[in-house]
Amino acid sequence: MKPFMDMDFLLNNETSKKLFHSFAEEKPIFDWHCHLSAKEIYENKAPENIYDLWLTGDHYKWRAMRSNGVNEKYVTGDGEPFEKFEAFADTLTNAIGNPLFHWSHLELQRYFGITKVLSKDTAKEIWDESKAKIAQGGFTPRELIKNSNVYALCTTDDPVDSLEWHQKLIDDGFEVKVLPAFRPDKALHIENDTFVSWVKALADVSETKIESYKAMCEALKGRMDFFKKMGCAASDQSLTAVVYAPASADELEAIFQKAMNGESLIKEEIDKYQFETLIFFGKEYAKRNFAMELHLGSMRNNNTRMFASLGADTGFDSIDDDRIAFGLSRALDTLDKENLLPKTILFTLNPKDNYVLGTMLGNFQSDEAKSKIQFGSAWWFNDNIDGMKTQMKALANLGVLGAFVGMVTDSRSFLSYPRHEYFRRILCGLIGAWVEEGLYPYDEKALSKIIGGISFDNAKEYFLG
Amino acid sequence: MKPFMDMDFLLNNETSKKLFHSFAEEKPIFDWHCHLSAKEIYENKAPENIYDLWLTGDHYKWRAMRSNGVNEKYVTGDGEPFEKFEAFADTLTNAIGNPLFHWSHLELQRYFGITKVLSKDTAKEIWDESKAKIAQGGFTPRELIKNSNVYALCTTDDPVDSLEWHQKLIDDGFEVKVLPAFRPDKALHIENDTFVSWVKALADVSETKIESYKAMCEALKGRMDFFKKMGCAASDQSLTAVVYAPASADELEAIFQKAMNGESLIKEEIDKYQFETLIFFGKEYAKRNFAMELHLGSMRNNNTRMFASLGADTGFDSIDDDRIAFGLSRALDTLDKENLLPKTILFTLNPKDNYVLGTMLGNFQSDEAKSKIQFGSAWWFNDNIDGMKTQMKALANLGVLGAFVGMVTDSRSFLSYPRHEYFRRILCGLIGAWVEEGLYPYDEKALSKIIGGISFDNAKEYFLG
Amino acid sequence: MKPFMDMDFLLNNETSKKLFHSFAEEKPIFDWHCHLSAKEIYENKAPENIYDLWLTGDHYKWRAMRSNGVNEKYVTGDGEPFEKFEAFADTLTNAIGNPLFHWSHLELQRYFGITKVLSKDTAKEIWDESKAKIAQGGFTPRELIKNSNVYALCTTDDPVDSLEWHQKLIDDGFEVKVLPAFRPDKALHIENDTFVSWVKALADVSETKIESYKAMCEALKGRMDFFKKMGCAASDQSLTAVVYAPASADELEAIFQKAMNGESLIKEEIDKYQFETLIFFGKEYAKRNFAMELHLGSMRNNNTRMFASLGADTGFDSIDDDRIAFGLSRALDTLDKENLLPKTILFTLNPKDNYVLGTMLGNFQSDEAKSKIQFGSAWWFNDNIDGMKTQMKALANLGVLGAFVGMVTDSRSFLSYPRHEYFRRILCGLIGAWVEEGLYPYDEKALSKIIGGISFDNAKEYFLG
Repeated sequence: MKPFMDMDFLLNNETSKKLFHSFAEEKPIFDWHCHLSAKEIYENKAPENIYDLWLTGDHYKWRAMRSNGVNEKYVTGDGEPFEKFEAFADTLTNAIGNPLFHWSHLELQRYFGITKVLSKDTAKEIWDESKAKIAQGGFTPRELIKNSNVYALCTTDDPVDSLEWHQKLIDDGFEVKVLPAFRPDKALHIENDTFVSWVKALADVSETKIESYKAMCEALKGRMDFFKKMGCAASDQSLTAVVYAPASADELEAIFQKAMNGESLIKEEIDKYQFETLIFFGKEYAKRNFAMELHLGSMRNNNTRMFASLGADTGFDSIDDDRIAFGLSRALDTLDKENLLPKTILFTLNPKDNYVLGTMLGNFQSDEAKSKIQFGSAWWFNDNIDGMKTQMKALANLGVLGAFVGMVTDSRSFLSYPRHEYFRRILCGLIGAWVEEGLYPYDEKALSKIIGGISFDNAKEYFLG
Repeated sequence: MKPFMDMDFLLNNETSKKLFHSFAEEKPIFDWHCHLSAKEIYENKAPENIYDLWLTGDHYKWRAMRSNGVNEKYVTGDGEPFEKFEAFADTLTNAIGNPLFHWSHLELQRYFGITKVLSKDTAKEIWDESKAKIAQGGFTPRELIKNSNVYALCTTDDPVDSLEWHQKLIDDGFEVKVLPAFRPDKALHIENDTFVSWVKALADVSETKIESYKAMCEALKGRMDFFKKMGCAASDQSLTAVVYAPASADELEAIFQKAMNGESLIKEEIDKYQFETLIFFGKEYAKRNFAMELHLGSMRNNNTRMFASLGADTGFDSIDDDRIAFGLSRALDTLDKENLLPKTILFTLNPKDNYVLGTMLGNFQSDEAKSKIQFGSAWWFNDNIDGMKTQMKALANLGVLGAFVGMVTDSRSFLSYPRHEYFRRILCGLIGAWVEEGLYPYDEKALSKIIGGISFDNAKEYFLG
Repeated sequence: MKPFMDMDFLLNNETSKKLFHSFAEEKPIFDWHCHLSAKEIYENKAPENIYDLWLTGDHYKWRAMRSNGVNEKYVTGDGEPFEKFEAFADTLTNAIGNPLFHWSHLELQRYFGITKVLSKDTAKEIWDESKAKIAQGGFTPRELIKNSNVYALCTTDDPVDSLEWHQKLIDDGFEVKVLPAFRPDKALHIENDTFVSWVKALADVSETKIESYKAMCEALKGRMDFFKKMGCAASDQSLTAVVYAPASADELEAIFQKAMNGESLIKEEIDKYQFETLIFFGKEYAKRNFAMELHLGSMRNNNTRMFASLGADTGFDSIDDDRIAFGLSRALDTLDKENLLPKTILFTLNPKDNYVLGTMLGNFQSDEAKSKIQFGSAWWFNDNIDGMKTQMKALANLGVLGAFVGMVTDSRSFLSYPRHEYFRRILCGLIGAWVEEGLYPYDEKALSKIIGGISFDNAKEYFLG
């Protein structure tokens, strides 16, 4: 029996161990998609206890607790911090096979030096031990980031964001690159209540008037230029699916005016607006060399009652199963036809689509980059051993695994960097097993380049050139 | 080489063996979804030979035989019992990797003490040996159920069923709980020819007139009350997919009247009727604490020619691939909004939907039960080693595996209980491997609770409280 | 560590080795679906170098190179042959886990006796070594086919094809059966520009006039008779999905006339034409005992720019995700109802559909053949270790694996026969592991029949009787 989560965690043979410890372990981290707050990094406040770090904003943990029958009082309600921590510890024992089990113990080991197993029985001592450790320092956002060997990270920012905190971090000389990423969800979701006020905010920050779709696009170009100046290298869009719905400039203006007048739109209008606006963004990204991340397949806010009480991103999202192949093909081809297809990274939340995406890539590659079109790492609900192996095997079978830009935390937590370690261990476990089985030669030069590339170098090259 | 199907079948390391033999093997069975006949249990007739037990009603075996090119004469036709048994034995050799191979040999081992491998060559001796064994007794339905260590089982019953045989079994003092389960398929399938006569039967058994949708619902409530009194804890619904189609009371009445008048309905009408009727049932189940089982993804009676000659459930069903996420989300949310979402168990026949269901659960959990919303075990075509592992890994990755209510036979056969053993061996194989690889600590207290829970305790708690 | 790709490649235990070396390795090949040119086989020209064999027409390799960032000049452009070979060699190192890596090295080993690992570093010496080897002879199409132990192969031919090269091969006494297969894609794709000219070509080759749908069908029957006389045993159809759209004879005539007049058709018209024409073909195949292959799930020519410059089949196809279950069920049932369902082989490009197809088979089996309805081997993007294992496990779980007609190359290359070896090794690896784990008895008689059957005997029996 292998020891529980020791230094060779997930490495089941000598080659895997060698690959991880020689070529992956010490690579820096380029976390090119996360949800950290530049403001919080700048303000750099220390937490009081492990509850602050773990349970104040993590919808993965909340979801698991609810699934274990924990009352909402001890999830997001007015329970005491330790009571909530204990309820989480108790949940964890039952969550055998869940990545939370591994993430939590990796975080206890790496940041707190605690190798005990967290359960209801050990909750109190681990609470105390972690509190003492926090009191000794080293747990501010910037310390956590630096000590995790992060080279750069990309936040997720609305076009209207001032990026003032990013600027302050530069001015402050923070060693780690904290780059903005352009996420114009509110520009795309014309059907939402927030659209009109968002357009107003865009007009304000752009110091212009926006009375037409065209004017909105011009303002957005200005924001993209500003983001570019601030170091932006990536954009991001969350969509259930891409619907192919080309529209004329006149149609777009009419739809825009309708929305601005507060009239409700029919599905065809929303589809047209979204398709053409996605195409607009794609072209502008290509001109600015922003990579275009597309996150497909989520179905959000399923629970009306809980949405009313807790809002979005609180653990009530799940996986959609719409068709994605045709619309996505048409969108990418529309851009490619004009030689304005940006570098693109395709993510799916529904693993049934792994082979659809894995083959879509190959339709639009070129020599602008090694795997200009990328298959994004196993995302959100797929961010577990099975999901990561499945995504990497799909990519290996269908494309060129060695060119993969690898892992992101996609996280709101300053303790989430061990997810890169988790990913790298799984990668080395997978490739090590291939070598041990005689499926790939033991060639250190090739393997170090592949492992080092997927761990860090490919992402650096892809985003920062 | 491991011996063929010995005591450590499916247990490939020491931890798996330990987990199975210590924590799973001797647990009783709560078979909360099956298709046994209460009447047959009450009448308790002994079979004459293994043909009676195996080949008179098992569409899994018929299907395999047809796939091996066996003429229908030896499947459901007028071939001699032994000829059919021999044709099945010959098929089995070719059906390498099929769960039938394991089920059949488990049944030979556990009920007949036969460890030989069944093939055309051994068919005659196994026929004779099993016949002699049956002649010694122990093969009546009640003996088979009791000797299989069954604590309780839930049959599948139409709302109009009198449940007289359930009552007789109680009166007779049969030690095993034989509980009715409420399956109102005929109420839901307003498009079927049987609808009008079924409504009439409902009126008769309810001693009322049913001249409106409202009256039908009232009668159904009466039947639910009756089922509740008879110990019912579960309901069941088979649907290809849930279509989100809310309708007003007036619309429902109009659709109902149209159907009762023998007029044919358009798809939108059927969808509206089914959606609202499903919601009606959900609310009433919540009030009575019936668990709501939803079986999604089947496409039935594909072969018109064979349906005409053999009827339903004879081996001509397969897997559908419709979208299920959106409609299901809307149905569960509709119930949840009114605080009338019952305990719910979601089954899919299409494994592409494992991650859709596995994440749907988390949208609607609460502290009413540990995993109030459950992911049903690998069902029907998925009831095999790969399917069960895949379902359990999906549940582990996405939810809380330790709260899983586990396996059901879903069977018409009194010999099908070794499928629980099969499931438990796969469970212990899976978890044992995690422990051996250092992915979960070897903690007997936690593991015995998890294994024992999934084998039996969770289901007992979930259904009977 | 196992040696890289040695004689026990993919065989990880003693039983697997025994099964492969005893029962699979020396079986002849029946390659019942490929894209070889009968003309090229007849003309029998020797290649000059490995570039001619590998890189002049293989869209798998082109696609991988583009994914590795190779400029089109070195893919299909005017780069020098060796430069292209070197760019491919460099790509291969990065394509860890891709079947191309294994296919390429199997081909180097089996045809050239080269056991070196191909990379940028070794490209020059392998170029030279392979060139010298080719110069020694043995690399003409017929030599490659014969030396690969091919018993028979089925080409892919349009109904209007004269099959003159097939006849010349017969006249020439070529020992390997080169059988035509009937692929009426152009008859089905009434929406394409080529339809009218294709109908004209059909009229010409049939020496008749075609002024009606009925006349077209009559001409096609004549071509089927001719193909039958020339040894045809299989037909083939590529479809994204089967849409259930029954139509009357009058409707079909009207649609046909519209198309012949150059008017464009709406989707419903195309669906009706295609559905009924598929049914027409199915019936005629049944009468002539042609097996009907249906290849579902491709989405072709996604890249408009590259299609304009390179045409079809150049590496810009990918996987579609439409629903396939319902339409396919209705098509097969429509044929079965009239007792005119031919032997049928269902292929899917989207692995999400493996369980849909694996269960569809069972709806329509009969005693006309062992597994009259077959699940086609893992196809195109799925033709890799994972894909083949997944397809075979699905078939094993859902049907009768022992009756499987096995592998095809689906290739345009005369060097692709090691894909049969690759498949057989994976098959023996899979079944050997089952035996080693005690899941199937070690019974040489049964195992040799199963392995030999899937490797060769079943296909010979199924197609040639």
